[in-house]
Amino acid sequence: MTSSNKSSKHRGLFNPKRIDKLKNKTAELLNRSIDQHINLAVTGLSRSGKTAFITSLVNQLINEGQGSQLSFFDPVQQGNFIAAKRIPQKHFRVPRFDYDSSISSLTALPAHWPEPTHGISELRLAIRYQPKASLLKYVKDMATLTVDITDYPGEWLLDLPMLKQTYQQWSEFTCELLSSKPRLDSSQKFLDKVAEIDPFAPANEEVLAELSKEYTQLLHTFRYELGLSVIQPGRFILPGELAGAPILEFFPFPALAELDGNDYQNASDDSVIGMLRARYLEYKEHVVRKFYRQHFVKFDRQIVLADCLTPLNNGKESFQDLEQAISMILESYSYGKSGLFSRIFSPKIDKLLFAATKADHVTPEQHAPMVSLFNELIHQSKNKLNFEAVEVQTLAIASVRTTQVGSTTHQGKTVPVLQGTVLDNNNNRDKKSQPPTGKNIMVFPGSVPEKLPQESYWQQNKFNFFNFSPIGGTSKNESLPHIRMDQVLQFLLADKML
Amino acid sequence: MTSSNKSSKHRGLFNPKRIDKLKNKTAELLNRSIDQHINLAVTGLSRSGKTAFITSLVNQLINEGQGSQLSFFDPVQQGNFIAAKRIPQKHFRVPRFDYDSSISSLTALPAHWPEPTHGISELRLAIRYQPKASLLKYVKDMATLTVDITDYPGEWLLDLPMLKQTYQQWSEFTCELLSSKPRLDSSQKFLDKVAEIDPFAPANEEVLAELSKEYTQLLHTFRYELGLSVIQPGRFILPGELAGAPILEFFPFPALAELDGNDYQNASDDSVIGMLRARYLEYKEHVVRKFYRQHFVKFDRQIVLADCLTPLNNGKESFQDLEQAISMILESYSYGKSGLFSRIFSPKIDKLLFAATKADHVTPEQHAPMVSLFNELIHQSKNKLNFEAVEVQTLAIASVRTTQVGSTTHQGKTVPVLQGTVLDNNNNRDKKSQPPTGKNIMVFPGSVPEKLPQESYWQQNKFNFFNFSPIGGTSKNESLPHIRMDQVLQFLLADKML
Repeated sequence: MTSSNKSSKHRGLFNPKRIDKLKNKTAELLNRSIDQHINLAVTGLSRSGKTAFITSLVNQLINEGQGSQLSFFDPVQQGNFIAAKRIPQKHFRVPRFDYDSSISSLTALPAHWPEPTHGISELRLAIRYQPKASLLKYVKDMATLTVDITDYPGEWLLDLPMLKQTYQQWSEFTCELLSSKPRLDSSQKFLDKVAEIDPFAPANEEVLAELSKEYTQLLHTFRYELGLSVIQPGRFILPGELAGAPILEFFPFPALAELDGNDYQNASDDSVIGMLRARYLEYKEHVVRKFYRQHFVKFDRQIVLADCLTPLNNGKESFQDLEQAISMILESYSYGKSGLFSRIFSPKIDKLLFAATKADHVTPEQHAPMVSLFNELIHQSKNKLNFEAVEVQTLAIASVRTTQVGSTTHQGKTVPVLQGTVLDNNNNRDKKSQPPTGKNIMVFPGSVPEKLPQESYWQQNKFNFFNFSPIGGTSKNESLPHIRMDQVLQFLLADKML
Repeated sequence: MTSSNKSSKHRGLFNPKRIDKLKNKTAELLNRSIDQHINLAVTGLSRSGKTAFITSLVNQLINEGQGSQLSFFDPVQQGNFIAAKRIPQKHFRVPRFDYDSSISSLTALPAHWPEPTHGISELRLAIRYQPKASLLKYVKDMATLTVDITDYPGEWLLDLPMLKQTYQQWSEFTCELLSSKPRLDSSQKFLDKVAEIDPFAPANEEVLAELSKEYTQLLHTFRYELGLSVIQPGRFILPGELAGAPILEFFPFPALAELDGNDYQNASDDSVIGMLRARYLEYKEHVVRKFYRQHFVKFDRQIVLADCLTPLNNGKESFQDLEQAISMILESYSYGKSGLFSRIFSPKIDKLLFAATKADHVTPEQHAPMVSLFNELIHQSKNKLNFEAVEVQTLAIASVRTTQVGSTTHQGKTVPVLQGTVLDNNNNRDKKSQPPTGKNIMVFPGSVPEKLPQESYWQQNKFNFFNFSPIGGTSKNESLPHIRMDQVLQFLLADKML
């Protein structure tokens, strides 16, 4: 071999054409193995800012160089990043992520938050870069990282625990929730109605449909009026094409444990309890399991967005509900041998980013406590779970920054303040002190606790933040102002662009 | 065998218990074979009255005896009909047909037409009857006919011809339509925009999305403003969960025949023309073919509803468009060896009912011409098709009767008139003569031509009818007033209840 190599070398060494040909061939071979692909999944409970996050992520990459601030994203910082562009997505039957409408609302004057999405959507990016691996130092060609971004509702992850629950177990868990504060005030009427039904009577489909509608209405109230996070079954509030189908017409039935076990087991599918149970099973199989099989198992990296500030504003019960929701969501990433997943699916997520959103809604010195608080939320359940081989990071971010930071003097001391345009009073506990929508205000929203708040924290009622409008007025071809989107990119993409 | 029979007879003949047991067993065996099942499919272009039709059909059956007028439905007339009730549907993932809301709007005061459905829905009926077959004369037991009713948009059938068209052929057909009256006025701007695009340039997904949106908007204009019937692709105006997905983002491209054939064939999927073609193919496979495979092949009997009166009101072009749409829809029922279906699917429809709706919107002596006209519409294309083994019937019906018939004297002659409550002026050609909505009027809408109208008919402008509101004020447990729903039931169900 050596002699043959030598002989070919001797024959061709000074033939420039031959050298070019070899170079090209090497480059081609290397590129083939270097071109990379990532399936990036973005989720979060509804109104956690998924649409704004994806829009900003795409905006930062495709407008790199146009005022972008990506100091912590190595490929840009080290000059390896060349350019990114949107290219046609892979799946024809998945709705496209509507970047154009979204960037229009964020850059308009006055700007407004983009319309929320109601299901799954996709967008594909191609990122061109100059690989820096030493192997390639003689090669002028570029490599491409293809990124498929999938946006899906966090509520779908909340359904995962149902896979290991029987209808009876799920009913117990859910009726327990419905019968406790802060849900009980809203759900009492529904619970009373269901309690009157004979579980073994022949089912009347219209009655079940009516009660399912009431239960769904309760879920809306919990999420959008009480600001709660544990919403199950998740598809009830985002039904899509299943609206009005029997698979979404069931609800928890109280006190099942008190029924005779045999009677319960033998109840026919035409009885009230039999029909509810049959639909629950169908939901698990054809809604929950289907999502994990069709989509979840294909994701490489996952971003979970969570707004901790709104529950902090709403009070103790809302915050505890967020804790529980995060713990339920985390189960989807517990791959250990004892985890639910290792038995059912084979997901391949290797990086998991928890992003605490709205970092621009508190003053900068509060970001460290925000991350610390969020970490406590996660680690509470993380200890119970098994994150084998999954790298986890937590960041306090603002996908699109809405405020300017300044300072003012208060009782002789300099204190930091935020300046921004008030959006609405949804999250403001003290309605009386709410400034009018659209007003530009200067405010100090308060301190974020570093640890899970104690009873005394809730009694002192320290935190009170306002929702702000995006600033707007920038060109669509400029980068949006943000907080730590460069660190997001660094964590999610940089290792694939070496 | 005979001797053994005899001996058992001798042994048990006078044992009444044994006789009862035998009787029960026979009844059970017979019932098992006699219980019947029909998959009944109801379709029609949007606003042809599918929801009102199904509501009335169900209402007539479940309220039989409560004022029902079903003289031409043999099982009722001959006393074999016992009762009908709604029972839970079979498919958990198909939306339920919302009978309750629909009957509520039709019986309220003031009554209004039910909300239209936007996709497929289902409802299941169980009809109990006393079989009259002689075999059963000693058996007191009943038999059950289970009827699964499926409601789906007629637009889905209009897509069938696409299955045998290439993207090029479909583009030619559709651009021809867009470039002719009455569509051209609306579509000129769209056609001009598309003509400016280089078909071989790299595709810009956003531009294709924008143009697809414009094309979809045109389909809406054609259907709801111009009253036209040929709407393709049908899923564009009822997208459901595919809203925003690339599979619904294509449109016809003009003058494809003028392109170099090789260039066209070799165009990559990333070029404008290649991407449009790829999406068209995906649409055929995963929307059109999927519907036929999942649903259509399961239907036993089909009702096609068509409103001929509105196109007659709208004028020549609207009427000719209905002709073409009916011809396209009929292809779905052409099962001959040469038909498209025999090669692709194996449907099993044995009865096909064409119902000309709104028979109550003309005076009774016009029903015969209505049927005759509708027959001409069908037979025009029927000759070209092969209805092997499919029994076809045409009826002029009113699912829910909205008018009273009276007479008045005009120029010394007695003429028939209708009395009803005016709904709106959507279908009234002569806006000036439109009475106000909600007014109770007496009117003679004109004569329906017996044959396909000639040029002279359109010039004389004879026909001018008003849309009426349902009468309302009846109980939900009474039968709705109707025209010929009994004949509908007779044709669709009676032979299964012998």
